[in-house]
Amino acid sequence: MQNVIYAAPAAGVLALLFAWMKASWVKKQDAGEANMIEIAAQIQEGALAFLRAEYRVLGIFVLVVASILGVAYFGDPERGWQIAGAFVVGATSSALAGWIGMKVATNANVRTTAAARIGLSPALNVAFSGGTVMGMTVVGLATIGLSGLYLLFNNVLDWELVRTVNVLTGFSMGASSIALFARVGGGIYTKAADVGADLVGKVEAGLPEDDPRNPAVIADNVGDNVGDVAGMGADLFESFVGAMIGAMVLGLGFDAVVSGDVNPIIMPLVIAAAGIVCSIVGTFFVRTKEGGNPQHALDMGAFGAAGVMAVATFGIARYMWPEGGTTNASGQLVTWLDVGWATVAGLGAGVLVGLITSYYTSMGKVPVQSIAEQSKTGTATNIIAGLGVGMQSTAMPIIVIAFGVVIAAEFAGLYGVAIAALGMLSTTGIQLAVDAYGPIADNAGGIAQMSGQPPEVRERTDKLDAVGNTTAAIGKGFAIGSAAMTALALFAAFAQTAGISGINISKPLVMAGLFLGGMLPFLFSSMAMKAVGVAAMEMIEEVRRQFREIPGLLEGKAKPDTARCVKISTEASLKRMVAPGALAILTPVVVGFTMGPEPLGGLLAGVTVSGVTMALFMANAGGAWDNAKKSFEGGGGYKMTDGAVHPKGSEAHTASVVGDTVGDPFKDTAGPSLNILVKLMSIVALVLAPLLV
Amino acid sequence: MQNVIYAAPAAGVLALLFAWMKASWVKKQDAGEANMIEIAAQIQEGALAFLRAEYRVLGIFVLVVASILGVAYFGDPERGWQIAGAFVVGATSSALAGWIGMKVATNANVRTTAAARIGLSPALNVAFSGGTVMGMTVVGLATIGLSGLYLLFNNVLDWELVRTVNVLTGFSMGASSIALFARVGGGIYTKAADVGADLVGKVEAGLPEDDPRNPAVIADNVGDNVGDVAGMGADLFESFVGAMIGAMVLGLGFDAVVSGDVNPIIMPLVIAAAGIVCSIVGTFFVRTKEGGNPQHALDMGAFGAAGVMAVATFGIARYMWPEGGTTNASGQLVTWLDVGWATVAGLGAGVLVGLITSYYTSMGKVPVQSIAEQSKTGTATNIIAGLGVGMQSTAMPIIVIAFGVVIAAEFAGLYGVAIAALGMLSTTGIQLAVDAYGPIADNAGGIAQMSGQPPEVRERTDKLDAVGNTTAAIGKGFAIGSAAMTALALFAAFAQTAGISGINISKPLVMAGLFLGGMLPFLFSSMAMKAVGVAAMEMIEEVRRQFREIPGLLEGKAKPDTARCVKISTEASLKRMVAPGALAILTPVVVGFTMGPEPLGGLLAGVTVSGVTMALFMANAGGAWDNAKKSFEGGGGYKMTDGAVHPKGSEAHTASVVGDTVGDPFKDTAGPSLNILVKLMSIVALVLAPLLV
Repeated sequence: MQNVIYAAPAAGVLALLFAWMKASWVKKQDAGEANMIEIAAQIQEGALAFLRAEYRVLGIFVLVVASILGVAYFGDPERGWQIAGAFVVGATSSALAGWIGMKVATNANVRTTAAARIGLSPALNVAFSGGTVMGMTVVGLATIGLSGLYLLFNNVLDWELVRTVNVLTGFSMGASSIALFARVGGGIYTKAADVGADLVGKVEAGLPEDDPRNPAVIADNVGDNVGDVAGMGADLFESFVGAMIGAMVLGLGFDAVVSGDVNPIIMPLVIAAAGIVCSIVGTFFVRTKEGGNPQHALDMGAFGAAGVMAVATFGIARYMWPEGGTTNASGQLVTWLDVGWATVAGLGAGVLVGLITSYYTSMGKVPVQSIAEQSKTGTATNIIAGLGVGMQSTAMPIIVIAFGVVIAAEFAGLYGVAIAALGMLSTTGIQLAVDAYGPIADNAGGIAQMSGQPPEVRERTDKLDAVGNTTAAIGKGFAIGSAAMTALALFAAFAQTAGISGINISKPLVMAGLFLGGMLPFLFSSMAMKAVGVAAMEMIEEVRRQFREIPGLLEGKAKPDTARCVKISTEASLKRMVAPGALAILTPVVVGFTMGPEPLGGLLAGVTVSGVTMALFMANAGGAWDNAKKSFEGGGGYKMTDGAVHPKGSEAHTASVVGDTVGDPFKDTAGPSLNILVKLMSIVALVLAPLLV
Repeated sequence: MQNVIYAAPAAGVLALLFAWMKASWVKKQDAGEANMIEIAAQIQEGALAFLRAEYRVLGIFVLVVASILGVAYFGDPERGWQIAGAFVVGATSSALAGWIGMKVATNANVRTTAAARIGLSPALNVAFSGGTVMGMTVVGLATIGLSGLYLLFNNVLDWELVRTVNVLTGFSMGASSIALFARVGGGIYTKAADVGADLVGKVEAGLPEDDPRNPAVIADNVGDNVGDVAGMGADLFESFVGAMIGAMVLGLGFDAVVSGDVNPIIMPLVIAAAGIVCSIVGTFFVRTKEGGNPQHALDMGAFGAAGVMAVATFGIARYMWPEGGTTNASGQLVTWLDVGWATVAGLGAGVLVGLITSYYTSMGKVPVQSIAEQSKTGTATNIIAGLGVGMQSTAMPIIVIAFGVVIAAEFAGLYGVAIAALGMLSTTGIQLAVDAYGPIADNAGGIAQMSGQPPEVRERTDKLDAVGNTTAAIGKGFAIGSAAMTALALFAAFAQTAGISGINISKPLVMAGLFLGGMLPFLFSSMAMKAVGVAAMEMIEEVRRQFREIPGLLEGKAKPDTARCVKISTEASLKRMVAPGALAILTPVVVGFTMGPEPLGGLLAGVTVSGVTMALFMANAGGAWDNAKKSFEGGGGYKMTDGAVHPKGSEAHTASVVGDTVGDPFKDTAGPSLNILVKLMSIVALVLAPLLV
């Protein structure tokens, strides 16, 4: 029965083949007219230039950390270098997935525009196929990497299980490191470009969105790919791997495993394999007729895959789980049914968090309306309302996550929490495809505008883009929810590996750790927001300079120097991602070695609780501000409760534009970066744990 | 030696006598011309009307909670009613202190204006004397109430010590309940009035600050008293009592106490008594020459008192602490020297947090300058910068508090943490006097403006007011720091009383409690901010209505209906303080009885960590925005780093005004209310603890 492990690399290869097929198909589609191709080439060039520059920095970082890891395992230098090796493989896999996904996404954007000249359905097909490549590459490389290393260590080199799993944590840490920089760097990049393009181009010069005369507009479109394709991909790569590793570590505590049954350890890999198959099947449900609702098509695919997956998990558990159940370290008996229910708890929590997020950030719902309403009395009340909505929106998701944890643990102990996280993440393949579809559709609209397509083309891409905004909001909620569950699983895995009997917060040192941890997300967010502010200022000044110094630019007689704007965003983001990154990686090391494992546990708990809450606050406030602004822009304007209609360009609309600008670094830089912070700190602690015993 | 306990009621009586003396002296001062007296009467009337209305609501609340407490102690109904009695005494004492302080503050404001006609020094004297009454009444009533009940139960009724201390927790809960409503209700009141007065009066109608034609201006001045005098008074009353109760409960664990020595239990009362004496002495140092710096005078008083107190604590500990030390429940030996050092740790942390707060919120320092600088590119960048500064400002205070806790506990265990909190709070008498001085000086300026005093009078009151703004910022930092330490002490006291060996956050239920607790401050803040938003909208509409419907109002020929604005603020704030109040009180009850004591501990830890961090974030962001705005208003404007000067009325200044308006509910409603949330939830849990064993 142990051969079932080979399902994991097989499914991984299948995912990569499917991605390759989709990528080739996208490449073969018509890319449209010469000016479309030229614009798309600029975007692709900019995006890949950013990745190249980023990977140069990351390459150095990965080598340095790998060397430290190799040396630092002083008691056991051999294992140190093995962990370092796993770390490099993890980092490389995640980076490679980002590269492929971004390359194909920037092929798909212009072809989506071209297809939109024919109709909505073919355009959706191209955009979603582009997203599918990102999704499948991430799950494929993650599953192959993790199961490949497992097979190498456990089956080929014949190591004992504990050691195998311990070394595998390095893979997860590698993935986390890439995710950190992809999210933070990408987040700074995209918002610096966006704010620069908006504030000078749209507000000061009065140009429409995506106008080719705006020098920052290419950088802005590059930013969508950098932040929402590569950044989101690396984020979910990390969660996906982290949930598997967390479950594998926690599985070591089962009686059956101690007596030689490896099934509870390899089951997470098999669940991931099944998730890949479900995701591939799900993609076939994403179809829409002309005039149909693309949202419905995407929901069908994602929810359908999740539903099938829930059933599949019960089957896998029934087949693999030790007959009659097995007891964990705290003496709780866990049966195959328990494992199934824990998965359902995770899946249910994931779907609920997504739906709640969608409620708080959707146009036409009470929260967004209240912000639009408060825009009537000006910017200040718009901002206060948005902050209030963001804070309020944390309540329900946290309650859902807390319940999810309790239920999963009730069924299957802390292993259940990890399995619940994996339940949420097993269909990452299609989830990420839906997420990555968004920026492709957004780019397609930009290219349509810049290349001067007829209105009906832009209308179709707008429709695809609007759906993309909703999927982006839900996707962010999903990313936060899965990050929370993954972080908790890694936290529990840390406590088990560090050999501490508990993390008692009534001890003063642990209390201090908890306080420090609770503060870190605030400090980290302030660094990210400050970075956006500074980078945006540079961009603003550059755009102003070009309008001033390039004669005929505003009249459309001269071309802007878009490459310079791309360069500014790239350099600023790379320079400013280092400090928050160092904070995230060094803090657990310093606390662990100076204060000990239990206070480090307090730190992790603090950072997870406050990081997840802050991430929800910031992502939802940003999403709600965005749609409050859009409420004024559709149709004839926004109708207040007093019956007055405030159109685009009214004072209330202007106030809502400011709110949206404030929300940008919230939802696209600081918020998503916090997902990584909580996971990364836990995985660093988990890698260190054996040294702290 | 047990007679030393009588020092506590004696010092309490001394404080009240001193307050009475100061109040009479203030009353005897010249109140100025008829129009000044009339305006002042309106403010006083409005303030007392608010308190009367608030106390009516609170009266019902207190009776209901007292009845529940009486009934709920089902196992021990007699003790239930005793706790209920202590609860009523605590609530009444705090309410009485608020009433007296507010009454005298609203006597002092107009007399400060009158004295400012003569010079700065007499004006400072009147304003500070008014503040002193609030300070001394709070510490006097708190000390008399707590020590009186202790003497009644332990010495007259001859109860055993554990029972006495348990019943005393009711006193603290009573004080907390009043504080909650005073802070939340007062915070909503003051900001609804402020936003209404500013947005319509200043921005729309173009009137200057405190113009008598503005209908909301009296409500605005009432709000300063309601929020910053009564609210701050109740807040520190609660911290002062909470720190003492926390130390008394934790003292029960010492070997010496178990064998009959009550000194570790009554020492907190004696330290409070010494603090009163030091505070009274400190007030005599608050003197300034004409042309001198009032800030310097206030610092002398407050820091002088704190310094003397540090020394006095060593003396008290030397005299009272069991010879040779005594061991606590975890077997740690604590000597008199250890207790002294724990106090110093608390005092040091308090002073540092105050200084850090002052750095982040003072004009001319980097954080405030960065916000002013970012106002150049508009409102959005001003808001982003302010949020960034607020988030960043949480780092150092949290590190200081965490260190303070670790050091205090290193010396004297968890009892040391409580003693450290008390160390910060022992000189509350003068700290609060300095705090309450602020709104009196602010009011004095308003009265000068409304009554048309010559410019030099307004200049002097402005100078006093500017100092008040700095002391307010430091006072807020101090209030948050002491709330954090007090909450931790109460948290530890809860863990001990509930008889749980620890609070292990690697248990799923405890983890869930931690998550829920971490989210509550966000939900609570959103409720407070929403309440301000709604109340401010009502106020805005009323002010607009008056300008529209009262003929000749803007020309100064007709009088505004100020009473209606006062009424709107009063009703709106009372109506909207109930929901957040209920959330704060009911959550620990529900979690305690459904999830058990250990998850309740997790909840408390979560709420403390996230509440303190959020309070720092909000208070400091608000303070920094306020002074960024003021940076444009002094002299010729604000000089940016590029050399350009942006004067009052420039676009950058307008952007900074919006930032300040956003900051108002942050720093004056939600932020300060969080102090109460963290303490109140801990004290409710502590009162419940014996039922959860």
